[in-house]
Formats: sequence, structure tokens, C-alpha cells
Amino acid sequence: MSATAIETIPQIVSFNTVGTWRGNLRTDVKARQFDIGVAEPEELGGDDSAANPMELLLAGLDGCLAVVAEVVAGEYEAKINSLILVTDGELDARGFLGTAEVSPYFQKVVTKVEIDIDLSSEKFAEYTETVLRRCPAASLMQAANVEFVIDWKQI
Amino acid sequence: MSATAIETIPQIVSFNTVGTWRGNLRTDVKARQFDIGVAEPEELGGDDSAANPMELLLAGLDGCLAVVAEVVAGEYEAKINSLILVTDGELDARGFLGTAEVSPYFQKVVTKVEIDIDLSSEKFAEYTETVLRRCPAASLMQAANVEFVIDWKQI
Repeated sequence: MSATAIETIPQIVSFNTVGTWRGNLRTDVKARQFDIGVAEPEELGGDDSAANPMELLLAGLDGCLAVVAEVVAGEYEAKINSLILVTDGELDARGFLGTAEVSPYFQKVVTKVEIDIDLSSEKFAEYTETVLRRCPAASLMQAANVEFVIDWKQI
Repeated sequence: MSATAIETIPQIVSFNTVGTWRGNLRTDVKARQFDIGVAEPEELGGDDSAANPMELLLAGLDGCLAVVAEVVAGEYEAKINSLILVTDGELDARGFLGTAEVSPYFQKVVTKVEIDIDLSSEKFAEYTETVLRRCPAASLMQAANVEFVIDWKQI
């Protein structure tokens, strides 16, 4: 792995979304040229026309871990042959419903990662630590005091 | 607004995603029957085929705030005529790149909400506080020590 130079100047990057509420718990979000629907399943009162907000957060987490996994693999000059991420998030709906004084967000998030990458087991341990530390979405979960478990399996 | 009974039994709700990495910083995520693409723009080395992970987090935030805004409006027996959410998130890319010891996730998130709802200004202040407190995605940002600003405008 190549040594990384310290960069003293902040590199601020901005992201932007515009959401338009359509009723029935549905919102159409635009991020650059991309349309992202957000809705709720029928049992929660929605029209089940799109993933719900919590699923989008978990999708962002999966995608973020995969991006960092690929970028860090490049630094190790290691090739990823396959990478699958399965994430489960749990929350206590009483926070959202306002029926108890509990946090409305995820109490626990578990991500199982199955990765085929050509790294020794020693290097692999270092690699997974680096990915977790540098992943914006994963470190957001950790900073928010979510019980975040990431279970890496090298195949 | 109707008084809400305290519920002593946890109501655990689970959400699940499965992400399959496709190379070129692209991941296909499945959440129930929904397909959510995650990619990176070309300037970040991707194929720009979908929103990126940070945009998905912000889309989840917009959609989550809208869901809670609608649900809480119902409790106030208030009608929402229109609701638009514009969110900007900023991070320091050095955290992700590993070139400085800074948090890789959002430093600051600003959401501007423009809402047409039939509530007095006094009730409106209470309403916005309730929405913020009960929104899972917004409270996740706050708990992670993101500088989260929500700017409500009643039109």
C-alpha cells in the first residue's frame, strides 16, 4: 500500500437534494439528474410506490461501504472479484410515533459483507479497519451511537 | 392535537437491504421489491449511472422529514397543501480519502423546508419541534454531531 500524504487544506464537497411531497407519504426527490422516490408500504399508510426513508439510508450505507472498499482495494493493489453487502437495521417505532421517549432512529445496524479479494488474512484485517474508518455513512452510524456491527467474510 | 398514550412495549421494526457490487464504484441495492442504484459521478471515478451514497442519505432525510411532517399534521388535524424540502450536505473529502484525520461524514447539513399548512404561528412552532424530534433520519444526523440546521418557512 502506498503511503498517503497528509493534506492540510480542507476539501469540502457538497451534495444537494430537492424533495417534493406528493401526499400519501410519498416524496419525489431529485439529486442532480437522478429521481429518487421515497414512500411507505401500505401497512404504514403509504402507497408502497418506492423504498422508504430508512431503506434509502441503508442503501446509502451499502453503496458507501462498497465505494470505500473498492477505493481502498486500489491502494492495496488488490483486486475485488465479488462483493455483496446484506444490511439489517432495527428501530423502535415508538420514537417516530411519539408514544415513548425513545430515540426514533436505528438502535442497531448489522452489515454482513462477503468479499472475494486477493489479500492475506493479516492485510485483510487492516484493510477492513481502513474501510470502516474512512466510510462516511458507516462512521455516521457509529458517531450517532447506533450499535453498528460489520461482519466481514473473505471468500 | 390529541394526547398520545405512552406505549411501554418496544415496537421493533426492521429494514433490510442487499447490495451487489458491480465494479466502477457501482452497487445495485435491493430493498424489498425496489431497486436502488448507487454510483459515483465521473469526476470521482464512477460511471455516473445513479445517485451517490451521500445523495441517498440526503434523499432519505428529505423523505423522512416529509413522512413525519404529514403524520404529525394529521395529529394536529391540519392540512398540508404543499411541502418542498431542499437539502445541502457538506463533508471534508480528506476523511474519505484518508489524507487527514477528519471525520469522513457530513460536517454540516442544511434543510430548507417550505410548507403550506393551516396552523397558527404558535402551533406551527410546536409542530416543527415535534417533527424534528420524531424524525428518525434528522435525529440520526443530530446524534452524530452533524451541524444540522432546519429552516422552516410557512407559506
